[in-house]
Amino acid sequence: MTGRLDDESYARAALTYLAEPGDVRLGGLLRTCGAARALRAIRSGGFPAPTGHDGAASPAARAAAQRAMLRWQVRLGELPEATEMAGLCRTGIRLVCPGDPEWPARLDDLGAASPYALWLRGTADLRFSCVRSVAIVGARAATAYGGYVASEFAASVASRGWAVVSGGAYGVDAAAHRGALAADGVTVAVLACGVDVPYPAGHADLLDAIAAQGVVVSEWPPGRNATRLRFLVRNRTIAALAAGTLVVEAASRSGALNSARHARDLGRPLMAVPGPITSELSAGCHTVIREWQGILVTSAADVIEHLSPLGSAAGDPATRPGTDASALLGRDALDLEAAAVLDALPPRGGMGSVKIAARAGLDPDTVLRCLGALAAVGFAERCDQGWRLRRS
Amino acid sequence: MTGRLDDESYARAALTYLAEPGDVRLGGLLRTCGAARALRAIRSGGFPAPTGHDGAASPAARAAAQRAMLRWQVRLGELPEATEMAGLCRTGIRLVCPGDPEWPARLDDLGAASPYALWLRGTADLRFSCVRSVAIVGARAATAYGGYVASEFAASVASRGWAVVSGGAYGVDAAAHRGALAADGVTVAVLACGVDVPYPAGHADLLDAIAAQGVVVSEWPPGRNATRLRFLVRNRTIAALAAGTLVVEAASRSGALNSARHARDLGRPLMAVPGPITSELSAGCHTVIREWQGILVTSAADVIEHLSPLGSAAGDPATRPGTDASALLGRDALDLEAAAVLDALPPRGGMGSVKIAARAGLDPDTVLRCLGALAAVGFAERCDQGWRLRRS
Repeated sequence: MTGRLDDESYARAALTYLAEPGDVRLGGLLRTCGAARALRAIRSGGFPAPTGHDGAASPAARAAAQRAMLRWQVRLGELPEATEMAGLCRTGIRLVCPGDPEWPARLDDLGAASPYALWLRGTADLRFSCVRSVAIVGARAATAYGGYVASEFAASVASRGWAVVSGGAYGVDAAAHRGALAADGVTVAVLACGVDVPYPAGHADLLDAIAAQGVVVSEWPPGRNATRLRFLVRNRTIAALAAGTLVVEAASRSGALNSARHARDLGRPLMAVPGPITSELSAGCHTVIREWQGILVTSAADVIEHLSPLGSAAGDPATRPGTDASALLGRDALDLEAAAVLDALPPRGGMGSVKIAARAGLDPDTVLRCLGALAAVGFAERCDQGWRLRRS
Repeated sequence: MTGRLDDESYARAALTYLAEPGDVRLGGLLRTCGAARALRAIRSGGFPAPTGHDGAASPAARAAAQRAMLRWQVRLGELPEATEMAGLCRTGIRLVCPGDPEWPARLDDLGAASPYALWLRGTADLRFSCVRSVAIVGARAATAYGGYVASEFAASVASRGWAVVSGGAYGVDAAAHRGALAADGVTVAVLACGVDVPYPAGHADLLDAIAAQGVVVSEWPPGRNATRLRFLVRNRTIAALAAGTLVVEAASRSGALNSARHARDLGRPLMAVPGPITSELSAGCHTVIREWQGILVTSAADVIEHLSPLGSAAGDPATRPGTDASALLGRDALDLEAAAVLDALPPRGGMGSVKIAARAGLDPDTVLRCLGALAAVGFAERCDQGWRLRRS
C-alpha cells in the first residue's frame, strides 16, 4: 500500500472492516467473483449470481446467504473512504493482499477461511520472514520454566535465521518475542486486534519493538479491539503463517492447544516441550505428544531439524549469501539477481524498490522478490525509507 | 527348595556359583544337555559331545569352548555341597529353577541368556507376582521430582494389584519399592548380589521389608557381592520379569536406560515419565519417548492402561475373585478350581500345598497354579508355614 489502493485491494481492505475473519461464506464469494464485486454486492444488497451448490433452488441456502449479507451490511456505515484507508500508510501501516509480493503463500492452505487481507506494521517482509519460521505458543500464565524455555528457544532459532511467530500475549508469547528480539532476530506478532492497538496495554513497548525489528500483523483493521472469539480466530493464522508450531506450556484446554490443533489440521509439523507431570501447564504439551503425534523437542536444534527440508539442516548463519538464498528458495536463477540487488542496497538510510531496480538493472518485481529473499536470510531489511543492508 | 534338591536343581544352583549369569555358552549347554550333565562336564573338564555349529570341526570353536570351561572350573573350589546348599532354606532363602511352579515364564524370552536359576528371599510368589507387574527404574541420584513420581506411581499401581519390580538401589528404585510397600502392595527387588547381602548397606531394612511383603530375587548365590558389571547383567532380568518397564528419571547414558533397552529388545511395553528439559535426569526419559518409541505416561492409570490386555483395563480391586483371576489368566477352567483352593486356605497360620490339595480335592500341581494366581490377584499369600488367605 503505497498511498494508493487499486479497486481489488481497497475492496479487500473494506471487507476486513465489514466481516469477521474466517467467514467461509465470504471466502467462497471472494474466490468465485473477487473482492470488488463482492463489496459491490454487499453495498447493493444483492448477492452475485449464485454458483455451485449454493444455488437459488434451495430456499434454506438463499436465507442463509441473506443472513450473511445482513451481517456484512451492518457495518457499512463504519467503512472508511479509499483515501482515508490509503492514508493509514502514512502512520506506518500497510495492507497486504493475496497476489501481493509480501502475501505469505502458506495462508492459502486455509482455503476459504484464509484472511481477506492482512494489515501490517513493521520493517520485516512478512512473506519471506515466514519462509523459515516457527510459531511458539503457550500459556499466558506461564511458569518460570515456560518463560525460560520460550525465550531460550526463540533466541536460539532466531540466531540461526528463523523467524519467531507468536500472538503478542503475556507469558509464553511475550517470552518468545523477547527472545527473538534479544538475539537480533525477526519476530512476527499476529494480533487479534488492529496493529495500532496496544493490547495488552502492558505490551505497548514490546509491540513497538517487534514492529521496529520484525512485523506486527492483523486480519482486523486498525482501531479494532480484541475479543475472546477473535483470539481463537486469530490462532489459525499463527499456525498457517509458520512452517511449524511449537507448544511450550499449555493447560489441557487452552488457547495454545487451539493453535496446535490448527497446525495439526493444516498438516504442519507440530512440536511440544515436555515438562513436569506435576505441572498443569505441561499437561497440554504431553497431550500434544501422546495423542496428537506431536514431536517431543528438548532443544532449538530439535525444532530446526524437524522443520528443515532434508539436507538443508540447521541454517548455519555463516553460509554465503547467494548459496543460502538459493538453497532456501530453491530457485537456481536467483543467485545473480540477488547479488545484484544486494550490491544496490544502501548501507544506511534506505531506498525505494524502484530506485534499487534502476541501480541493479532489474525489473521492480524481481527486485521485490529478491529483497524479500535477502530479508529472509538476514541481509536486507525494510525501513521507513524503503530498504537497506541489514547490520549483522 | 524344601530342604532337598534333586540332581537338576542342585546342578543349576551350583552353576549360579560357577558361572556369571547371562553366559550364553552355558545357556546353550543347559538347553542341549541339561544342568546335571553340564555340571558333570565342568567337574570332569570335558565338554559334552559337541552339537550343531559349535562342532569339533572348528579349532577356534574348540578353543573358545575350552576357555569357557576353564572360566567355570576356576570356582569349583568354592562350590558348597548339596546339603549345605539345601540348608540355606532354613535361613529363609529358596531356589527356583525353570520348570518349578514359581519360575516366571517370562524369563524364557531371554533365550540362552536366561538365568540358570533364581535365589529368592520373601513371602510373595515370584511367578504370579510378575503376571501383573511393572518395572519402575531410574536414577540413583534422583531429584525430588523423580522420587515423588516413582513413589506415587508405585503406590498407585500397587493399590490396584500390580507388583512393582525394581533394583533395590538408592533413588528411583527405593522410592518405587517404598511406594508399593506403603500401599500394602507386592514389590520385587532384583539384586546384583546375593539375596542375603544388604547392599547398599543403607537399604538393609528396606530389603527386609520387601522380603516380608514381597520378594527379593537374585541370579547370584547367597553371599556374592555386587559389581558394576553385575548391575548391567541384572538389568535384563528386571526387564524380563515385568510386563513392562517405566523409566522415571534417567540421565542420557545410565543404567536405567540399560534396563529400558532390554525391555525394548524383548518387545515389552516401554514407558517414560517426561520432566523438565532443563533437568539432565529427564534427558534419558525424553530419549526413550522420542527415539525408542517409548510411551509418554503422566499417571499410574496410563501405565496400567498400556500394560493391560485389551478390555481388562485398570484392574479394579473390587472385582470378584473368580472373574478377576480368569480374566487375568485367560483360563476359563480356572474359576471353579481357584474357588476351591480359596475355600481351602486357612485365614491365619499357614498350610502346605499338599494339605490344601487334599482339602480342595485337587492335585498338587493344580493347587500350586491356583495359589499363584490367587496370590497374584491379592487373595492368597505365602508365609513361613505355607499359604494363607491374604488380609485385605
